[in-house]
Amino acid sequence: MTIKERAQRAKQSSILLAAANTELKNKALRAIAEALRGKTDTIIAANNRDLELAQAENLAPPLLKRLAFDRSKISGAIAGIESLLTLPDPVGETLCATELDQGLELYKVSCPIGVIGVIFESRPDALVQISCLCLKSGNSALLKGGSEALHTNRMLADIIADATRQNGIPEGWIQLLETRADVGEMLALDQSIDLIIPRGSNEFVQYIMNNSSIPVLGHADGICHVYIDDEADSAMAVRVTVDSKTQYVAVCNAAETLLIHNSIAPQVLPPLAAALAERGVELRGCSRTAAIIKVKPATEKDWKTEYLDAILSIRIVDTMDEAIDHINTCGSGHTDAIITTNTGHARRFMSLVDSGNVFWNCSTRFSDGFRYGLGAEVGISTNKIHARGPVGLEGLLIYKWKLIGSGQTVAEYGSTKKFTHRRLNNSCPV
Amino acid sequence: MTIKERAQRAKQSSILLAAANTELKNKALRAIAEALRGKTDTIIAANNRDLELAQAENLAPPLLKRLAFDRSKISGAIAGIESLLTLPDPVGETLCATELDQGLELYKVSCPIGVIGVIFESRPDALVQISCLCLKSGNSALLKGGSEALHTNRMLADIIADATRQNGIPEGWIQLLETRADVGEMLALDQSIDLIIPRGSNEFVQYIMNNSSIPVLGHADGICHVYIDDEADSAMAVRVTVDSKTQYVAVCNAAETLLIHNSIAPQVLPPLAAALAERGVELRGCSRTAAIIKVKPATEKDWKTEYLDAILSIRIVDTMDEAIDHINTCGSGHTDAIITTNTGHARRFMSLVDSGNVFWNCSTRFSDGFRYGLGAEVGISTNKIHARGPVGLEGLLIYKWKLIGSGQTVAEYGSTKKFTHRRLNNSCPV
Repeated sequence: MTIKERAQRAKQSSILLAAANTELKNKALRAIAEALRGKTDTIIAANNRDLELAQAENLAPPLLKRLAFDRSKISGAIAGIESLLTLPDPVGETLCATELDQGLELYKVSCPIGVIGVIFESRPDALVQISCLCLKSGNSALLKGGSEALHTNRMLADIIADATRQNGIPEGWIQLLETRADVGEMLALDQSIDLIIPRGSNEFVQYIMNNSSIPVLGHADGICHVYIDDEADSAMAVRVTVDSKTQYVAVCNAAETLLIHNSIAPQVLPPLAAALAERGVELRGCSRTAAIIKVKPATEKDWKTEYLDAILSIRIVDTMDEAIDHINTCGSGHTDAIITTNTGHARRFMSLVDSGNVFWNCSTRFSDGFRYGLGAEVGISTNKIHARGPVGLEGLLIYKWKLIGSGQTVAEYGSTKKFTHRRLNNSCPV
Repeated sequence: MTIKERAQRAKQSSILLAAANTELKNKALRAIAEALRGKTDTIIAANNRDLELAQAENLAPPLLKRLAFDRSKISGAIAGIESLLTLPDPVGETLCATELDQGLELYKVSCPIGVIGVIFESRPDALVQISCLCLKSGNSALLKGGSEALHTNRMLADIIADATRQNGIPEGWIQLLETRADVGEMLALDQSIDLIIPRGSNEFVQYIMNNSSIPVLGHADGICHVYIDDEADSAMAVRVTVDSKTQYVAVCNAAETLLIHNSIAPQVLPPLAAALAERGVELRGCSRTAAIIKVKPATEKDWKTEYLDAILSIRIVDTMDEAIDHINTCGSGHTDAIITTNTGHARRFMSLVDSGNVFWNCSTRFSDGFRYGLGAEVGISTNKIHARGPVGLEGLLIYKWKLIGSGQTVAEYGSTKKFTHRRLNNSCPV
């Protein structure tokens, strides 16, 4: 089958999958978990093959680590499925109900989006996680993993396809793509694919966003800021900045730039610089910062760079509004925090900073679906429509309007009949 | 200013406008209504200039009718603003609140999307309506109307810009574009424009969708179906089909194709054909339809055509699933209705038909924001993400996550502290 035919196949299956009930979907999810448990040795054998090839090709150690899908990672994937089983079915929820007239009732009901294209890098865990999220939410999945995980991904996709087919899930709902050329074809299939979720480097995500007319859910850059206000608690400012920068430097919600009010900078920067130096963080600063602490000079490029590394750029500002402007100009709309004891300042910062996540007196690192208690994380989005910030299962859903009548025609309204538009409290009966 | 600079200007204003409170926005809306009332004569003079030029260019009478912005249409526009004033402010609503831990509270709060680009054809009413919808929802608006309405649109945009500036709304939130080349530039400005709403012919909307990486809210085709089930009430089937087809043929929610079960066709088609003939509807049918009533032969092209005219294509099917397949293959995901007395059939039809609006025993013509009681209609969307079907003000909104802490760091969690993830019932305090 060509990629186009496989996408059409996934589309056909998605229609039936959208109507699958909760029991059926949960039974299939349990079957996947069991199959992964029962076939652990086969999965590890396939993964070893990928690891051997990767070692022969001198893949870097961090990539090898991500590629490995050992007993403990398989257990982790199974635990993920079990936690998904405990979540309520997000499909078929009545979001709004209105009586338009007697015997004419309108229901807004949640439903799956349809076909989700997911492109992820090496980690085979992602294949299990994202396909199970799609299944729980009634969506078909077109998956493209890293080519270095080919054997592992094939084995996992086969196991999932078999387990779900044997449990009454429409065949064809899960499709594995294998080459870069497949991805190129996929980006053009806007008739069959409804949403693309790319997980990977910012260049990669940016490429996807620029080369498809299919909507994309995700984020390219994560250029997060901490702003220390003139009315900040100094000790808290140091503690939160250190956590935002250093708790895990290689992730999108780590801080890259510190903005600090000139009136508090002389008091906060020295202890902050000492704490960051202890953790091996390189500091780059504006000229005014350099007058207070030892820093490398920051260039214009620094303000728009996601280091994903132990580097922090620092800029002194004269007003909070200057900080807000800096964030809205140089940031990526991901996560930005203010440290202040002044409620009015916090309110202004949180309304004027145009980011998916705006924090007051806490670390940018909290910006995450697990920490938010979403139950499952589909990804983090810097989109301005559909879903923003950490996205749970609801990011894979849309709704349809169901109107239930008893023979009404529009011609009757405007003349004899009038709309009542009365809010109803019941769920959709069909 | 170049189009790019104007879009950036709108973006800057959108940041401040997002923080504008309800009173300020309503005061500005009232000022617009007053200014339109006070300057009715000047508006009519500008409109007369457009009408004269259009007559000189031999514009078709229906287009002239749409272009005219007379006293009664101006009153209608003012009434629209007054009804918008009665709607609650959609911005700043707490959609969800969770305690992550003591003193660490997460709020999901509705906010404007940012900058909306709206492209509409001749009707100047649309300029007033859409700019007021944007203002109410805190969004900046880049507007491009039909070139034949240039003088009217300029006058209206100036009146709205003046009235809002004098009432504290940030300058630059409304920008009028005037040429086709401006639209071309606009489609590339994904750094400043967050959403495009095109209103116009399907070719036009399709062109916009294919030529911009900015998300588009709208619909191209409206190929709506009525399916008459084997268990339909015949009289109701005739009545609803006639209304769906003929109540107003030139609109997107009018039915274009009738699908009918073979076992009921001999009974329903003759009276239906008679009723449609009375209203001047041309019938095109499959060969089995032609064996029952007099029709022109339908070609493959008919099944995928939005006539927007007094033409109906008719196809006999052997099963409901054949009808569902036909709709999902040939339809446009807009509005599709089933006529049946069988609840199970209705349920299956409404879950398997992948359209924004699925109706049971009522006319497709009900698919409309006013009839749905949405208060205001931004447009009708066949998108699979963000907003689907008739879209009210909520289509112009997204949300941000506000996290309020007291100095928490992520490093503490996983070791000493645990998340509580307790649902809260209060609104976001900032």
